[in-house]
Amino acid sequence: MLMQNFFHQIAAIYYEGKDTQNPLAYRYYNPKKLVLGKSMAEHLRIAVSLWHPYFASEQIFAPEHPSTQPTWKKQVVDQAAHQKARFTAMFEFINKLGVPFFTFQDRDIAKEGLTINDSQRNIKVAAANIAEAMAYHEIDLLWGTANLSHLRYSKGAVTNPDLEIFTQAIAQVKDALDVTHQLSGQNYLVCGGCEGYESLLNTNLKQELNQYASFLKMLVDYKYKIGFKGNLLLEPKPFEHTKHQYDFNIATVLAFLQQHGLEKEFTINVAANHTTLAEHSFPHDVAYAYANNIFGSIDCVMGDGINGWDVEHYPQHLSEIVQILYMILQRDGFKNGGFNFDTMLRSANININDMFYAHIKNIDTLAQGLLIAASLIETGETENFLRKRYQNWDCALGRSILQGQTDFEKIFQHVGQKDVTLNISNIKK
Amino acid sequence: MLMQNFFHQIAAIYYEGKDTQNPLAYRYYNPKKLVLGKSMAEHLRIAVSLWHPYFASEQIFAPEHPSTQPTWKKQVVDQAAHQKARFTAMFEFINKLGVPFFTFQDRDIAKEGLTINDSQRNIKVAAANIAEAMAYHEIDLLWGTANLSHLRYSKGAVTNPDLEIFTQAIAQVKDALDVTHQLSGQNYLVCGGCEGYESLLNTNLKQELNQYASFLKMLVDYKYKIGFKGNLLLEPKPFEHTKHQYDFNIATVLAFLQQHGLEKEFTINVAANHTTLAEHSFPHDVAYAYANNIFGSIDCVMGDGINGWDVEHYPQHLSEIVQILYMILQRDGFKNGGFNFDTMLRSANININDMFYAHIKNIDTLAQGLLIAASLIETGETENFLRKRYQNWDCALGRSILQGQTDFEKIFQHVGQKDVTLNISNIKK
Amino acid sequence: MLMQNFFHQIAAIYYEGKDTQNPLAYRYYNPKKLVLGKSMAEHLRIAVSLWHPYFASEQIFAPEHPSTQPTWKKQVVDQAAHQKARFTAMFEFINKLGVPFFTFQDRDIAKEGLTINDSQRNIKVAAANIAEAMAYHEIDLLWGTANLSHLRYSKGAVTNPDLEIFTQAIAQVKDALDVTHQLSGQNYLVCGGCEGYESLLNTNLKQELNQYASFLKMLVDYKYKIGFKGNLLLEPKPFEHTKHQYDFNIATVLAFLQQHGLEKEFTINVAANHTTLAEHSFPHDVAYAYANNIFGSIDCVMGDGINGWDVEHYPQHLSEIVQILYMILQRDGFKNGGFNFDTMLRSANININDMFYAHIKNIDTLAQGLLIAASLIETGETENFLRKRYQNWDCALGRSILQGQTDFEKIFQHVGQKDVTLNISNIKK
Amino acid sequence: MLMQNFFHQIAAIYYEGKDTQNPLAYRYYNPKKLVLGKSMAEHLRIAVSLWHPYFASEQIFAPEHPSTQPTWKKQVVDQAAHQKARFTAMFEFINKLGVPFFTFQDRDIAKEGLTINDSQRNIKVAAANIAEAMAYHEIDLLWGTANLSHLRYSKGAVTNPDLEIFTQAIAQVKDALDVTHQLSGQNYLVCGGCEGYESLLNTNLKQELNQYASFLKMLVDYKYKIGFKGNLLLEPKPFEHTKHQYDFNIATVLAFLQQHGLEKEFTINVAANHTTLAEHSFPHDVAYAYANNIFGSIDCVMGDGINGWDVEHYPQHLSEIVQILYMILQRDGFKNGGFNFDTMLRSANININDMFYAHIKNIDTLAQGLLIAASLIETGETENFLRKRYQNWDCALGRSILQGQTDFEKIFQHVGQKDVTLNISNIKK
Repeated sequence: MLMQNFFHQIAAIYYEGKDTQNPLAYRYYNPKKLVLGKSMAEHLRIAVSLWHPYFASEQIFAPEHPSTQPTWKKQVVDQAAHQKARFTAMFEFINKLGVPFFTFQDRDIAKEGLTINDSQRNIKVAAANIAEAMAYHEIDLLWGTANLSHLRYSKGAVTNPDLEIFTQAIAQVKDALDVTHQLSGQNYLVCGGCEGYESLLNTNLKQELNQYASFLKMLVDYKYKIGFKGNLLLEPKPFEHTKHQYDFNIATVLAFLQQHGLEKEFTINVAANHTTLAEHSFPHDVAYAYANNIFGSIDCVMGDGINGWDVEHYPQHLSEIVQILYMILQRDGFKNGGFNFDTMLRSANININDMFYAHIKNIDTLAQGLLIAASLIETGETENFLRKRYQNWDCALGRSILQGQTDFEKIFQHVGQKDVTLNISNIKK
Repeated sequence: MLMQNFFHQIAAIYYEGKDTQNPLAYRYYNPKKLVLGKSMAEHLRIAVSLWHPYFASEQIFAPEHPSTQPTWKKQVVDQAAHQKARFTAMFEFINKLGVPFFTFQDRDIAKEGLTINDSQRNIKVAAANIAEAMAYHEIDLLWGTANLSHLRYSKGAVTNPDLEIFTQAIAQVKDALDVTHQLSGQNYLVCGGCEGYESLLNTNLKQELNQYASFLKMLVDYKYKIGFKGNLLLEPKPFEHTKHQYDFNIATVLAFLQQHGLEKEFTINVAANHTTLAEHSFPHDVAYAYANNIFGSIDCVMGDGINGWDVEHYPQHLSEIVQILYMILQRDGFKNGGFNFDTMLRSANININDMFYAHIKNIDTLAQGLLIAASLIETGETENFLRKRYQNWDCALGRSILQGQTDFEKIFQHVGQKDVTLNISNIKK
Repeated sequence: MLMQNFFHQIAAIYYEGKDTQNPLAYRYYNPKKLVLGKSMAEHLRIAVSLWHPYFASEQIFAPEHPSTQPTWKKQVVDQAAHQKARFTAMFEFINKLGVPFFTFQDRDIAKEGLTINDSQRNIKVAAANIAEAMAYHEIDLLWGTANLSHLRYSKGAVTNPDLEIFTQAIAQVKDALDVTHQLSGQNYLVCGGCEGYESLLNTNLKQELNQYASFLKMLVDYKYKIGFKGNLLLEPKPFEHTKHQYDFNIATVLAFLQQHGLEKEFTINVAANHTTLAEHSFPHDVAYAYANNIFGSIDCVMGDGINGWDVEHYPQHLSEIVQILYMILQRDGFKNGGFNFDTMLRSANININDMFYAHIKNIDTLAQGLLIAASLIETGETENFLRKRYQNWDCALGRSILQGQTDFEKIFQHVGQKDVTLNISNIKK
Repeated sequence: MLMQNFFHQIAAIYYEGKDTQNPLAYRYYNPKKLVLGKSMAEHLRIAVSLWHPYFASEQIFAPEHPSTQPTWKKQVVDQAAHQKARFTAMFEFINKLGVPFFTFQDRDIAKEGLTINDSQRNIKVAAANIAEAMAYHEIDLLWGTANLSHLRYSKGAVTNPDLEIFTQAIAQVKDALDVTHQLSGQNYLVCGGCEGYESLLNTNLKQELNQYASFLKMLVDYKYKIGFKGNLLLEPKPFEHTKHQYDFNIATVLAFLQQHGLEKEFTINVAANHTTLAEHSFPHDVAYAYANNIFGSIDCVMGDGINGWDVEHYPQHLSEIVQILYMILQRDGFKNGGFNFDTMLRSANININDMFYAHIKNIDTLAQGLLIAASLIETGETENFLRKRYQNWDCALGRSILQGQTDFEKIFQHVGQKDVTLNISNIKK
């Protein structure tokens, strides 16, 4: 099964240093290089989600016209062989990039059957094939997830007004979690991509949100029941498929989890494109998640900087990556999370090398950012600056405020007694 | 003091019915007309915030060039007289519109002194003048608030890294709440307009958020201590003055309140322009606030529909107003809240009649929306449709899910036993 | 071929007046009703583009899962029958709506062959079938167009760096225009959907724009050569497929046409969603096109009002439609253009009736807008107001300015001699 | 007059190389360093517009509260001294930065009088003072402009429905151009900031656009009459003060100029924030201007990347600067234009050093971009790549197309004879 022939024209990608002229080499990513006592690979925990970007896009690739297919796709002749070819190509690709993880969506690895029992059979076959490939290439599973975008979920999967659709979504998630567990996934991801509503006129918000909470509670119960050791991730998304998505941004998810006592059971998968689409920024959302003890993992896909569209290209702004890695390093790194690459091809990306160039460039951006962030940690300047900026809180009054031991009247007196001029002369930088 | 001479050319605005040709009359707003057993005035609880839009904009009006001032502003000759003229004009304007409430920001009614004690004296004088005007015109206070936009708060008021700035903000809020209490305000409003940050590199998010929480807790304590019977409102705002605002949207505020056990002490002031600026919609945010038991009041100012800017014009989309009033009617109306008008003049609005036209048109939009929403309540069609849409949850399985009495495996069995084809044949409308 | 059985459960849609409770009837659209001396049908010239929205979306409709297909699609068993079924359904649908026009894209009516000669054969067969259906139902062709979105055009069709791709695009357009001519189309539409670039680093802007101009000139030549009497339309589009589209907005197209002496040969097809996506507005772009003598026709599809996405739903804002129809009536109506409906189904639109509801509602919005616009024309108030607003230009100085017969110095003298105070006292409403 | 005491704590800024730790030094900007045979200063032609950002913002700086003023502003005690202090501070600042140009808006250098004759006297006094400072510091004028944002222009300056307002605008522009000429300005800039409309219902688009054209023609005539050798610049702006601006983007301006035969008399001042606000990008608009022979100069101020607001901070994206400088170098540099810095202070920028840090950082970004762009020119790789990408146009068929010597039928034959498979196998990178 695992013949490496799909990308035969391309050798494995290695570190050659920042002055190399070879486009198929790393300038910064050197997996075993130690940074602050840990290898780059352990710091960055990079995963690639292949099926979604590359294989799911076959239909984008002019399906009615075989001659337009890239040659590496034309070899697919029947469904079973097709699936195996996908797995082979995927693991060959990840192996050549030299990164340690992959991720999957259930319907990208195995097609849906006419009944849930058919679907279960399909995904079990896929899982067996994948387990073999994982062992062969020594690649681990960062997370698995259920793709709940089937047409029957168009009015919501677990937030559907129809009880039967709800139960079908639950059954699909159960299978996806089972397979994730079987493949020793480090996380299971909940994507609420189709949870939301189109119009208030036909929607009972409280009912639908209660359905969502019931789902999450049962998911937590089931995780413990089967002994899944991984972490549960939830990924906010502001738009589409529905006009008003229930998981708009991290704060929306957090408020919801808190209301249902679930905030300790889930962490957030921060998708960079969803942060800007919701009018935040990539570093802001990582900081917000950390400040609220709910940071989990990262999806490394940017939206368009001009019109905001969710085009899912790869992160380009080094300064943002530095800020994010600085935060991650300050908290001793990812726990179960990592950086996942899961992009959509633009229609003009028809050259097979584009896949490699895009990943190499962006893995290098992460690696370069890591090196800069580590140097910021080492000098300690940023942290010292920060400590000084807030240092006048470190006094009796400051402490009494933060510990809830004073009140408006005492503070008013403090201001009034000094009879200070209310000016800006002592405003901090 | 209360001579009515600023708008002498304009008579009081009355209801003349939808076919009137008089631009200075109401087509729909008939304050005493009963709708579902309550008067229109009681349903809509309309307030006008005059100082902010009209008087604060004097400096926009080419300050260095007196000849460009509208005549009704030129009468201001000295500071004390200036203030009285503002109050006289304001209450005359509200009285002519025939609406029951006004709102205020502290720095719009009394200027800041060089010390907090000066400022307190200034606002007490203003409050005495206002109390007189309120009694004369029988106009009540919907809410008061502290305008924390002074330059010293540019890096945060209660979230400032400088303890002294924090205490100055507290002292100002104390005065604003005292005056609101004295004038029997039905609410006190917290605007976090300058709470946020510019750069993660100089910001300790957790520290600043803890400062914010300390402020809110002391505010609640002080409210109870002085016996203020009103409601505490919090108004989300996604942008400006800071790049990343701490009160981005309702969900952000809610998550924050929940973390600090404050979610029962505050309700939300939904500002329509802030809902769209945060990529939600006006009806969505009202629905979201209601679904989370945190709806309070409404600010009736729209953003620009094309570029999203916060231009604060008045609501124009009847269909949105209908949806909002339908929700309000379903919950038996506002508790302490109401519809507040608080707009910025566009630079081209230089005709004094524009102020009347704008308010009349938009009060009429609310009134028309109320009549349509009431008819939806009366026919019951919308509610019946909604009940039917979710009715297959009303069975043993549905109840067991919502009550947390079942699990993934039983639901999988339910789906599997039926061996249903996973299709869309029974998808609900 | 033309059995009417696809929508057998739905009768033809008729005018029943604004108080009807029948959702499958018109409230305002009464095709034969005379408005300002012309029938509603003649004023509005409504077209429906069926293939694109309904049939092209088959693959969106869970293609791998036949049971999810709406029943009216399941009847398709082979390619030839499939095509006939499409035409039958389309013309039945248009006929039931009672509107006079249809529009088509070449690749939606006939699939591409392996060679241009194959493709030509396919489209000729389709055209023959369509001609028969047009005659049977008395429905005319508003416009035809070539869909240049094949993968080989992903780096541009006529702006492709590859000469061979350019020639293939030309060949395809020739066929599309030939068929449009054969079917007596009133316009031929040029959509520059894939003309643009991704990166300046690999793009020669001048070369590509020259290619585009060469294409348009040859198109004009060919139009005259074959005696096509219709009008050539060009449709601006700000985004996608490429990041920077060459036909961003009307102004961009106009500047380009003027540079190549083509501004008299083309008029603009204003697509409402493209106007807002480019940060203009629907009425603005119609006004801009008229002011520049380049207005042609309208595509009636709105973008999302919150995130701006190009979701292509139907126009909902009556006030905008009124403004547009007012402009059209002022210029004695469309010449060759009309209102075309060409929407994408949202994934939740799975009920066949949704197609009818959407069209009925929006045809009614046009009809209601027409009635209001006509009343504005009849009273003449708007026009009188406008004339008065500019009337002080009607003097010697005003005329000398507009006729280019004065200069800066004389005008300065005019201002200086009066020694006027530069104030706002006489600013116009 | 020209004592250098405003920024006495800060020494002149010099180049210290990229490894310096001194925040008040240049890392890349070395004015005399030769790059491709010309000094950095000559390549970049940097200008600073001081009045607008720093002095105009005094009212932002809590005007009613003197204690909040930065100390360098408190020295201003009377109007005449105030004006001299501004000039002194400005030229001291530019001199310390070591850049060769400044720019001005008329109303920022001299206040408006009650009559045009007063205003003229004011600006002549200012010009005399400025001429002295220019000579003393050897700083030249890049451009002057008239600030037409007075309230009387709120419904348009030269596009105002009132003829008298139009003439007042003309008189003001005449004075501004006279002073620009007197100070040997290299350009005169037309900003259409208030040319546009709010509502179609009260606007005669054609009339207003004709007024605009009359203004531009008289401006051109007057320029030649007085012998002004500089270039006329026009700056597009998509939003504000009016909702629909007449100079939305470059294409809108270009189409307008072409219609009136003015396209050879004006070039474009590309303001980076206006390019993104109009949904283009900074490099795109420079490329578009060059491709249309209308590139003039650059304003170096970015909008907010998240919400698009026109916050006017300084350019940060090196990759964009590289692309822009590459284009400029390819065309042998600016003619009359340059890079102008004209920012608004954010409210949190209260430290006088912020002014220096911001300019140093961004001048360095330009200098770094210049070095990279020069190396791209030197290697020639980018240009070679580009030539190869289009090289199959270099044949008989390609030439005949671009020279207008072929037609649809011949091209169809070319495609048909080869009977090529329409595939993607030869799609260019």
